[in-house]
Amino acid sequence: MGDDGHLIEDCIFCKILRGEIPSFKVFEDDKTFAFMDINPVNEGHALVIPKFHAENLYATPDEWFGPTLSTVRRVATAVNAVVQPEGINLLQANGPGAKQSVFHLHMHIIPRSATDGATMNWDLVPGDMDAIGELAKKITAAIE
Amino acid sequence: MGDDGHLIEDCIFCKILRGEIPSFKVFEDDKTFAFMDINPVNEGHALVIPKFHAENLYATPDEWFGPTLSTVRRVATAVNAVVQPEGINLLQANGPGAKQSVFHLHMHIIPRSATDGATMNWDLVPGDMDAIGELAKKITAAIE
Repeated sequence: MGDDGHLIEDCIFCKILRGEIPSFKVFEDDKTFAFMDINPVNEGHALVIPKFHAENLYATPDEWFGPTLSTVRRVATAVNAVVQPEGINLLQANGPGAKQSVFHLHMHIIPRSATDGATMNWDLVPGDMDAIGELAKKITAAIE
Repeated sequence: MGDDGHLIEDCIFCKILRGEIPSFKVFEDDKTFAFMDINPVNEGHALVIPKFHAENLYATPDEWFGPTLSTVRRVATAVNAVVQPEGINLLQANGPGAKQSVFHLHMHIIPRSATDGATMNWDLVPGDMDAIGELAKKITAAIE
């Protein structure tokens, strides 16, 4: 799971990285980890995080930000292939005004339709865990 | 302005990169270019693009995507310092369902307040060009 020295105790994403909280993993390498959002805006909503605790964009060194975005590109391409949405938004939030809720840098990969009315400040509504788990397997298999 | 061989004729962002259309530039290096959005969601809304024409995330090679996101991090940090918003969202759109309107990869840097009601599908409303130009100078000066 990478170097635990880069993680902190009291962070839900650090806990996921340490395996203390389960997640629907779709990809990991030495610096990054990708998993399904369990409160999806739409089907296929995924998250990518660095294995480095930094609160936001400004605090994340390029050596961690670069690999994170490289993984975002790979996972988004797989989500696009599997879900075949009308579009995909990448969205990343910094600060309460942007409705950042977990203070460990993360990029959302959000499948979209033009009529879904998605906002940048969505309410968290749990998805169907069985369906998310099945989709996670398909996305994992599609990552190149 | 980089290698014109990576650009195409009929693309508004390629035209900005060639200087055929004016823009409020805030930063450029050999692979990337950053400028103010003239239809800003909020004050300080900026865009970062690679000097490489690729329609979207999936079509952008890592050798261009990585530097683009590195520039995003630098410019967003400067926007944050100058505008001091309650938050900043990064947003990137792929496909009509995500309301992508210019088919040259670009990342939006959007200052936010929790009450601005921003959606992912905003209407394009021109800003005050003088104010945008003044802000561009301050952001340029704040980039580290």
